[in-house]
Amino acid sequence: MPLVNFKLTPEGLTADKKRTLIAKVTDLLATELGKNPDTTIVIIDEVETDNWGIAGQSVTDRRKK
Amino acid sequence: MPLVNFKLTPEGLTADKKRTLIAKVTDLLATELGKNPDTTIVIIDEVETDNWGIAGQSVTDRRKK
Amino acid sequence: MPLVNFKLTPEGLTADKKRTLIAKVTDLLATELGKNPDTTIVIIDEVETDNWGIAGQSVTDRRKK
Amino acid sequence: MPLVNFKLTPEGLTADKKRTLIAKVTDLLATELGKNPDTTIVIIDEVETDNWGIAGQSVTDRRKK
Amino acid sequence: MPLVNFKLTPEGLTADKKRTLIAKVTDLLATELGKNPDTTIVIIDEVETDNWGIAGQSVTDRRKK
Amino acid sequence: MPLVNFKLTPEGLTADKKRTLIAKVTDLLATELGKNPDTTIVIIDEVETDNWGIAGQSVTDRRKK
Repeated sequence: MPLVNFKLTPEGLTADKKRTLIAKVTDLLATELGKNPDTTIVIIDEVETDNWGIAGQSVTDRRKK
Repeated sequence: MPLVNFKLTPEGLTADKKRTLIAKVTDLLATELGKNPDTTIVIIDEVETDNWGIAGQSVTDRRKK
Repeated sequence: MPLVNFKLTPEGLTADKKRTLIAKVTDLLATELGKNPDTTIVIIDEVETDNWGIAGQSVTDRRKK
Repeated sequence: MPLVNFKLTPEGLTADKKRTLIAKVTDLLATELGKNPDTTIVIIDEVETDNWGIAGQSVTDRRKK
Repeated sequence: MPLVNFKLTPEGLTADKKRTLIAKVTDLLATELGKNPDTTIVIIDEVETDNWGIAGQSVTDRRKK
Repeated sequence: MPLVNFKLTPEGLTADKKRTLIAKVTDLLATELGKNPDTTIVIIDEVETDNWGIAGQSVTDRRKK
């Protein structure tokens, strides 16, 4: 029954990378915590760099430096 | 004051369906828990099938089978 | 595959009320959107009234008035 | 280490407004709670008015009145 | 209609500090974005230091160093 | 800058298991997506079995069968 939510910036996040992430985090929960993969849910939210702040600045602005 | 968040895949999720969902879940909280509809908030997040995993696979891949 | 998250204050939220809420919201998604109940997930978060604000005040303070 | 998540409707939410929001909420957590700005994360989710309900109605419908 | 969710570690997070945080972030959204305070919702989640990771380590472990 | 949120039932979720989960998911994001571990945040929410529903039933009730 575990639920995993990733929030990631969209650059380079291809369908294939998402596929790998879903498979591997499901496997991690099965291996480390004995969680049933059949009821493991993964949701990936893509967050634009304007909408993500760290240290008081947007990621867009941080990357300009 | 309740808050309800739905995460749903976008196919078939028309403005009309969203309207129904908002009305009915607000009503459900009023009827079953006595919650005041005026302060009941509903947020619907639409999650693409590539970004949703179950049983270690994306929903996109599961539907191909 | 839908996911529903409720945030509710804990008063009066018995195991029985939770059971009803889970059953009825799952049924609502099946009836209105044709969602498969077997993969419908519901998570209820209980939020203390000190930790919930509306109109600039905590719910604890609003209820004192 | 604090994490702040805003859910806002997108109208008028320019890159500049987001920048201000990120800077000011980070500053608020530093000033009021002594939180280190370097590890303060802010995420802004934009929610369309069809997907946001209050008092049993979508915000789209409320604004028509 | 904005919604703000803070995730914070619980140490030093008194009812009074929460009250201040709720009031000030509601005010920030009114001042900077013109949001109506009456429908601004704030939810504070307290996350234990064992349950919070940064740079691959729990906050509990980081603080031991 | 990635953010990972796990929702898990609390049984068997020791400090040591949490430590492993934080380390391994941070490593997974570095290896598969090239994400910087220093700004990878992990938050684990523990959800009681009464508060988690699947297929219209609470996990508490499902486990009784």
